[in-house]
Amino acid sequence: MSAFAFHLDATDGTARSGRIITARGTIRTPAFMPVGTAGTVKAMLPQTVAATGADIVLGNTYHLMLRPGAEQVAALGGLHRFMNWHKPILTDSGGFQVWSLAKLRNMAEEGVTFQSHIDGSTHTLTPERSIDIQCLLGADIQMILDECTDYPVPHAQAATSMALTTRWADRAKHAFAHHPRRQQGQALFGIVQGSTFPDLRQRHAHTLVDIGFDGYALGGLSVGEPQSAMLDTVEATLPALPAQQPRYLMGVGTPEDLVEAVRRGVDMFDCVLPTRAGRHGQAFTRHGRVVLKNARHAADPRPLDAESTCEAANVYSRAYLHHLVKSGEYLAAMLLSWANLAYYQDLMAQMRAAIAAGRFEDFATAFYAQRQAGDIEPL
Amino acid sequence: MSAFAFHLDATDGTARSGRIITARGTIRTPAFMPVGTAGTVKAMLPQTVAATGADIVLGNTYHLMLRPGAEQVAALGGLHRFMNWHKPILTDSGGFQVWSLAKLRNMAEEGVTFQSHIDGSTHTLTPERSIDIQCLLGADIQMILDECTDYPVPHAQAATSMALTTRWADRAKHAFAHHPRRQQGQALFGIVQGSTFPDLRQRHAHTLVDIGFDGYALGGLSVGEPQSAMLDTVEATLPALPAQQPRYLMGVGTPEDLVEAVRRGVDMFDCVLPTRAGRHGQAFTRHGRVVLKNARHAADPRPLDAESTCEAANVYSRAYLHHLVKSGEYLAAMLLSWANLAYYQDLMAQMRAAIAAGRFEDFATAFYAQRQAGDIEPL
Repeated sequence: MSAFAFHLDATDGTARSGRIITARGTIRTPAFMPVGTAGTVKAMLPQTVAATGADIVLGNTYHLMLRPGAEQVAALGGLHRFMNWHKPILTDSGGFQVWSLAKLRNMAEEGVTFQSHIDGSTHTLTPERSIDIQCLLGADIQMILDECTDYPVPHAQAATSMALTTRWADRAKHAFAHHPRRQQGQALFGIVQGSTFPDLRQRHAHTLVDIGFDGYALGGLSVGEPQSAMLDTVEATLPALPAQQPRYLMGVGTPEDLVEAVRRGVDMFDCVLPTRAGRHGQAFTRHGRVVLKNARHAADPRPLDAESTCEAANVYSRAYLHHLVKSGEYLAAMLLSWANLAYYQDLMAQMRAAIAAGRFEDFATAFYAQRQAGDIEPL
Repeated sequence: MSAFAFHLDATDGTARSGRIITARGTIRTPAFMPVGTAGTVKAMLPQTVAATGADIVLGNTYHLMLRPGAEQVAALGGLHRFMNWHKPILTDSGGFQVWSLAKLRNMAEEGVTFQSHIDGSTHTLTPERSIDIQCLLGADIQMILDECTDYPVPHAQAATSMALTTRWADRAKHAFAHHPRRQQGQALFGIVQGSTFPDLRQRHAHTLVDIGFDGYALGGLSVGEPQSAMLDTVEATLPALPAQQPRYLMGVGTPEDLVEAVRRGVDMFDCVLPTRAGRHGQAFTRHGRVVLKNARHAADPRPLDAESTCEAANVYSRAYLHHLVKSGEYLAAMLLSWANLAYYQDLMAQMRAAIAAGRFEDFATAFYAQRQAGDIEPL
């Protein structure tokens, strides 16, 4: 078993590339983590997820605690075995989904009580219970329970919420340190809150670094704020975090978001966008977003992107994908989720290579030029 | 390009094994053809279908003529390229789906006019147009347009309908013989009708053999009649068909149906059952049908069938499959369709081997003993 570690291999401006070492394998950074909400990256076989180049997937504590239940997953040998994914897994704390999905939330110092969006049953999530669940799942990277705030939120309210997240961070660290199921090589990340207020973000970053975690996430973003506010917050926060530890921007984002956040020094991302868009008939390519339902694709024999390395993007015609989307076929979601995850992983690989070669700005220029050019012309 | 041919390699009682040769490859018989309704075997990648052992898939003329349209598929290079399936394809004539799906059918000597179940648009299918569509799709094995009758149906009505199918068979053969798109190695099969009346079935078989086709199907079965009536009809009809040509029982069936029909001398089958059942959370194994939604599977770490050769059946726990089904995940349909198609193909392979070895009855005895034993005991 390897101990958890982060190796910073190259920097280019503020962009960084490196490797996160876990007991279950190495994660090349900057890394994009496909989201395996309920123990499955939707519409994907795990081996196909791995084949796109993903080193790690994300599992949702909120979803898994409600169904099938963390103790159930543990009894079945943990989340890796359950979902047949044997590389690293990061689990979130459940806080974000309680905020976004659950009904009748009741926040208290102790934790949050909420009703399941599935069956209305009542559950409580505390910092300790969140760690307990993540240890039962066997996650390689675990997250502290945090409180998410709405956007926008008044400064005073963001500060109050942030202070609660800090007290919870202390409790989570203690729970993780002493959890009987904790395994060598597992890590716990803190989550910096503070909405889009630079002073709060910086203060919270320092506070969490003082507590001490294996890595640091930026939470409470990608919740409706403009991209510029998100990037300004990233830019204001990252200098307050230690360079020798991984930085994770939660729930982000579009390809453009990834490029801009990597440029500013973010190492890890997760987002449902590539798979959700795939299920809704949209593809991501070098040239932007392609809406396959559009009539322009109905008779187009060309693939999504002839230069893609992914079979879903370079073999099947746009006409076929259009047909599958119009017909509501499972294969539409399967192929487009696959193509999109492959595109995201290729993008990360290109950024890693560009940083290692010291030419990230050249990469970014080419990236925007390709998007500016737009999709191939209709026939 | 090979010419179409059928080699009868072995017989065991009335059971037969052999090979159908087409320009796109060899079909080992007895063969089960997965159904690729609208240009996709639902919830399956084409390479996964091939990996289960399928030598051929079926495409539905009715579905494809309505969406995306046969001319559209032809313009895109034909159905094989369209769906990325490069082994043989058999297309039905459209007759069965017009009977089972379309609205406001109007039967006439010339053909059938109907309204699309998708958008209510009006279409006409004649024996000639059905062949035209199948040639546009580029099907390796094509079927004559037939009229399906309800079950049960009076003898006189079945005879009248059968006579219409005969006149249409003549026209289809003529259309196929002279179609400009017809390619070397493509075949046309007749469809024997006559409901469950042995005299009609035998008479129709002789009539169609006199017209002369590359193979013969039994249509109008698996439409609600008891298994015994279906098998009695098979038994009464097959002796009237030439031994040196393939025999195809359309729309059948359960694993038991396949065993009993193979025993009687059928060479080819198609059925939506394995994929449809998979989408509805049901698995087929050696021990019968497994309903994964049942609570007995919720905590069961065992796979569907540890002895299966299919990863979907021998890796993932029943607890995981239960969870996927309960959660409505795409992966439930993907894994169960895969497991079911693999089970069906394994069953066919076992029957082919048993016939070649002259021990089909031993196979059948073991087959029924395994089903009699039932699913593994709950934990």
